[in-house]
Parts: sequence; structure tokens; C-alpha cells
Amino acid sequence: MKRRGFLKAAATGGAATTLAAPAIAQTQPSIRWRLVSAYPKSLDTIYGASESFAKRVGAATGGKFEIRTFAAGEIVPAFQVADAVQQGTVECAHAGALLLFGKDPTFALDAAIPFGMNSRQMTAWMYEGGGMQLLREFYRDFGIVNFPCGNTGAQMAGWFRKEIKSPDDIKGLKFRIGGFGGMVLERIGGVPQNIPPGDIYPALEKGTIDAAEFVGPYDDEKLGLHKIAKYYYYPGFWEGGSQISLYVGAKAWESLPKEYQAILEAAAAEAHVEMQAKYDARNPAALKRLVAGGAQLRAFPRPVLDAAWKASNEVYAELSAKNPKWKKVYEPYVKFRDEQILWFRFAEGSFDSFMASVKR
Amino acid sequence: MKRRGFLKAAATGGAATTLAAPAIAQTQPSIRWRLVSAYPKSLDTIYGASESFAKRVGAATGGKFEIRTFAAGEIVPAFQVADAVQQGTVECAHAGALLLFGKDPTFALDAAIPFGMNSRQMTAWMYEGGGMQLLREFYRDFGIVNFPCGNTGAQMAGWFRKEIKSPDDIKGLKFRIGGFGGMVLERIGGVPQNIPPGDIYPALEKGTIDAAEFVGPYDDEKLGLHKIAKYYYYPGFWEGGSQISLYVGAKAWESLPKEYQAILEAAAAEAHVEMQAKYDARNPAALKRLVAGGAQLRAFPRPVLDAAWKASNEVYAELSAKNPKWKKVYEPYVKFRDEQILWFRFAEGSFDSFMASVKR
Repeated sequence: MKRRGFLKAAATGGAATTLAAPAIAQTQPSIRWRLVSAYPKSLDTIYGASESFAKRVGAATGGKFEIRTFAAGEIVPAFQVADAVQQGTVECAHAGALLLFGKDPTFALDAAIPFGMNSRQMTAWMYEGGGMQLLREFYRDFGIVNFPCGNTGAQMAGWFRKEIKSPDDIKGLKFRIGGFGGMVLERIGGVPQNIPPGDIYPALEKGTIDAAEFVGPYDDEKLGLHKIAKYYYYPGFWEGGSQISLYVGAKAWESLPKEYQAILEAAAAEAHVEMQAKYDARNPAALKRLVAGGAQLRAFPRPVLDAAWKASNEVYAELSAKNPKWKKVYEPYVKFRDEQILWFRFAEGSFDSFMASVKR
Repeated sequence: MKRRGFLKAAATGGAATTLAAPAIAQTQPSIRWRLVSAYPKSLDTIYGASESFAKRVGAATGGKFEIRTFAAGEIVPAFQVADAVQQGTVECAHAGALLLFGKDPTFALDAAIPFGMNSRQMTAWMYEGGGMQLLREFYRDFGIVNFPCGNTGAQMAGWFRKEIKSPDDIKGLKFRIGGFGGMVLERIGGVPQNIPPGDIYPALEKGTIDAAEFVGPYDDEKLGLHKIAKYYYYPGFWEGGSQISLYVGAKAWESLPKEYQAILEAAAAEAHVEMQAKYDARNPAALKRLVAGGAQLRAFPRPVLDAAWKASNEVYAELSAKNPKWKKVYEPYVKFRDEQILWFRFAEGSFDSFMASVKR
């Protein structure tokens, strides 16, 4: 800022007004980045957030900071977008940290864990509860600077060919579910299956699998699973509010002028709130269409949720005993979650419950 | 963009790289704005949002677009901040539209109405449900361009000297509550009182009033009302998610370069998500301190909520019959609310209910 100070000092002799452009402009560099999304363009809510983000950065810089977005597979496959950032192949990526669960379960604390925080609580933890600092520290080893950049909200538990009436019905159930949810499902007798979205329909149709989870009404509708597995279960307790992240390569981040860093950060926050708003605005009509198309809504029986809750906490205790990185982030995460739940029971919870009861 | 096109054409002869700064910089003007907040600095969550917003705009422009923030009363009193924007005394303001309820109840649809949307639903309506367009049109007559810029979340119903056991206990109750909430309270026999925050404590202590609502634990704690009225009721059904707005004068907005407009819009969205996160992160500990200090939590009895719900809908029907501006915004608002409630009952509601039950 020395140069600006000099300019100010030099200007004191003249008649400077606060509205006038300075005589010598501080020019900002033209920068072109590539963003690789872990999602296909068909998921317009999630992929759309990376587009909105890039568009805003461009508009805020008069096109000087240009970020081109690429869907999963265009440059790198979905599961490798974080690697591409780490290796410097691209400057940034947009992905759910759940994709990195296989590398280290700690990543899931940046997205969702079974019976974790809901969307609003997760945002509170990231922005104001210390979550961002803890995760930034964790990501540092991967050469990544992370930013919250979207949330799906609480997900549905997915599409089942048969009803789930007790925990016994989970036993042997071949369920398309990944990462953490799959690990918990296995503990209660289920058989998790890792199947890419495009292959779910035929697998469920042929009976290779008994059930499949995806996201929620708006995204699920695109897969058409209600035509072959009519029971639509809730809640997707493994993703009570699944956060999506923007990953920026540490070197790319440091190379940015401070103004561009500020713009990028604000644009990520805007895309964060916008994605949740899109899901919230679009899910109700999609749910109605699905029900009109034959979907039958079913809540998991309480004993199923209780068994999964118990299994989840067992998994967390085991992870905490053997993975110090996990423990370091998980403990404050759970403390924050528990305090949020305590508070949400009163004003938020009682308000929402009353509204649900009068509009039933 | 013609000038840029010319520069590009002129540059084709040379060895241009995408990372090089252009030879002639597009300079951005230095602009200084004043923002008047309707809140005192002591409300650091709300007032803090205007500071965060201004800071981000400054950082994103290298200090060229400077917005100085002023607390209520520093330049104009709280209730006149919108007038100050309309008249061009200042370029922008940060206020809850409930303050303008007296001018036209339609303003409340930009903040909160009794039994309206919760925070997340309101954000979905504004960003993706058509709410922004409807309200922008309404505000046009006042020379204001509005942006969502914070939400308090569901508020508490406030501090009562005596318990409310039935709707009869509302009859004759002198309750410090403003605007729409007061109008509904009156319908069910209460006596609304308009008292500035600083005067609530002595009025409640002397018994001039029987009860007072403010915001929620974090803000309420500062007033110390738990020392003189120990029953802390919920939910504050008149503000299930009270949105705060950034008001920009239409002429000031139009005078901005497109880049500054983009920066302002992103910074407002960031402040919007940040304020809710601050309330969520800080309310739990404040609630615990209040309870440790003697506050006794009480839920409104169902018949009280039912009576208020009925009264609210009567008020809405009357307003719709006589105020076309209200009707134009209220009808889509309520349609959106009802669809949100339908959807929130499933994944979100069942997830939150389960979590509340296991952490009780």
C-alpha cells in the first residue's frame, strides 16, 4: 500500500474529490483459472453453484479474473478433482468432501456424517463456530484452501423396492450408498454397494440392488427411480445437511491479489447460500410430481434409526481411538452439534412444529 | 465493452499471455458511501453484519469503494433510515423492514409476519422463489433497491412476569411488542406497547408492562430482563425468521460501475449468511447463561398459538381485501410458505426431530 500512500501525499496539493478516479490506476492482473466440478451438468443445483460462483467472480472483476467451469469427466473424473487441485493441474474444484472419505474419514466432517449437523447448523459451525479454522488446518496437508460452497439440505433416504418395517429388513439389504452411510449401514446388517449415478436405474430394475439413495426429490426425479422402487424413505440420516466445498490450490490462492481473494471468498459464500435456496425452492414441486407418479413416502421406523444411531456412535468412538486427525475435528464438531440441537429445540423447533401441524 | 474489444484487436499483433496485465488499465472510480444502520453497535450480530458487508466491499475494491457505517442515531434515528435513503441523504441503510410496518404492512413481507416463513425458507423465497422480484417491484416506489442482508432466525417470545397458562392470560396483558405481532396480540386480547429497547428494563421492573419481547438469547441477555421477568417464552410466532435488509438508493445503485454492483451484491449475500450463522453460534451459550441466571423456559400453550394463528389469518384476509400491494406479495409468499412446510416435514423435519429426541 506504499504506492497508494505516496499517491495520496502527492495529491494533497491539488483539489481532490472523493469521487474522482486517481490519476494513475492500480491495475489488476488478468487471470484465468479452471474449476473442475465433481458433478455432471445435469445436477443443475450443484453444478449450477460453481457456475454462479465463476460468473460472480468474473462480473466483480470486469472479466479480468476468469474462472472456467468443467463438469465431472471433462478434464478429470469426479473422484480425482481434489487430486487435480493438489497437483496443480487445475486451480480449483467444487466437490463434496464425502468423495474423499476413502483417503481419510476426517474429510466427511467438511460435508456430512451420519446424525451430524443440519444445513444451518453446519453453516454456523463453519462461519462462526470454529469449523473453518479446524478444517483449513486439516486441508493444509493436501495443499488445499477450502470454502463452504453449497449444501443440499437434509437428504432423502432413497428408493426401496420393499418396505422397511423393522431393523431385520435392513439385514442383507443391498443398498446403493457410499462412504460413511455405507459403513454404518453395514454395521446394522446392510450390504452397501458403490454404484455410479448413471448405473443405479438398471441395477435397481434388475434387482441387483434392493435400494438406492441419491440426494432429494429434485435430483432424484431425474433418475426416475420411482418407476422401479416406489417406497421413498426419509430421513437420509447419513446426510442431514451435506455441505459442498470449493477447493482452491494453496499456491493459486496465495498468488491472487488481495482484492481477488476477497471477491472469491464473497462469491463462494453467495454460491453457498444460493445452492441451499435452490434445493429448498425446487424440492417441494419435485416431491409432488414424484408422489403423483407413484412414489410412496415412508419414514424409517424408530428402531431402525435407533440402531443406526448406536452403530454410528460406535464407529465414531473407534475412529477417535485410532485417527488423531479425525478426533481433533470430530470432538469440537459434536460439541457444537449438541449445543445447536439444544437451542434449536426451543424457538426454531417449536415454531416449525406448530407450522407443520396447522398446515397438515 | 467496445473499448476492450478494440484493445484486444490491437493486441493480436503482439505476444499476449493471459496472465499479463493489459497495457492500459480500466480504472475504477473511488467512491465513498455512508450506510446508516437501524441498530445500535451493542447489537453486534445485526450491526456487525453491516460492518462485515462494508469491510468486504472495501477489501474487494482495494479500498476504492468505501462504505462507512453509522449506528442508529449517529446520522439519523432508527425509524428514519429508509427515509434517509429515499431522500438521498445517505446512499444505503441496513434495517429490518418491520420498522416500516407503519407506512405499509407489505414491508413486513420482506422481514417476518406472524406464522410466516422460517429463516431458511425466507432465504429460499428471496433468492430462488420469486420473493426478490416481487419486493424489488414494491420498493421501486420508494426509490430503494433491496437486498437480503441477515436474518435473526426464529425469535423467542420474550420475558413474562407471570406464566401464561391459557389464552385468558393474554387478556389485558401489557406486552412490549411492535408492528404486526402487536396487531395480532391485540386481536387476542393483549395490549401491545411500543417501547424503545433502552426503556424496556425500567418499564418491566416497575410493572408498567407485564412482558416484553426482544430477539433471542444472545441479544436478550444484554438487556438483563431475566432478572425481573423470569418466564422466557417461545416461540416468538410473529418472527419465525426475521430478515434484515440492505437498502440502496436507486440512483446510487445505478451510478455504480457494474463491477461494484456485482461486489455489493455478493457482499450482501455473504453478510446475509454470516448474520444467521452468528446468531446460531452464539445463542446456545447465551441461553445456558440465562437459565443459570434464573430464566425459566416455557412454551406457549397450544390454545394460545391456535388463537394467534386464527387471529393472524383474519388480519391477512382483511389486508388482502383492502391493500392490493399487500395482496400481490402476500399471496405468492403464503403459497411458497405452504409448499416449504410440506417438504420440510419429511427429510428436514424427521431428521431434526430424531436428533432432538436422542440429545434430550
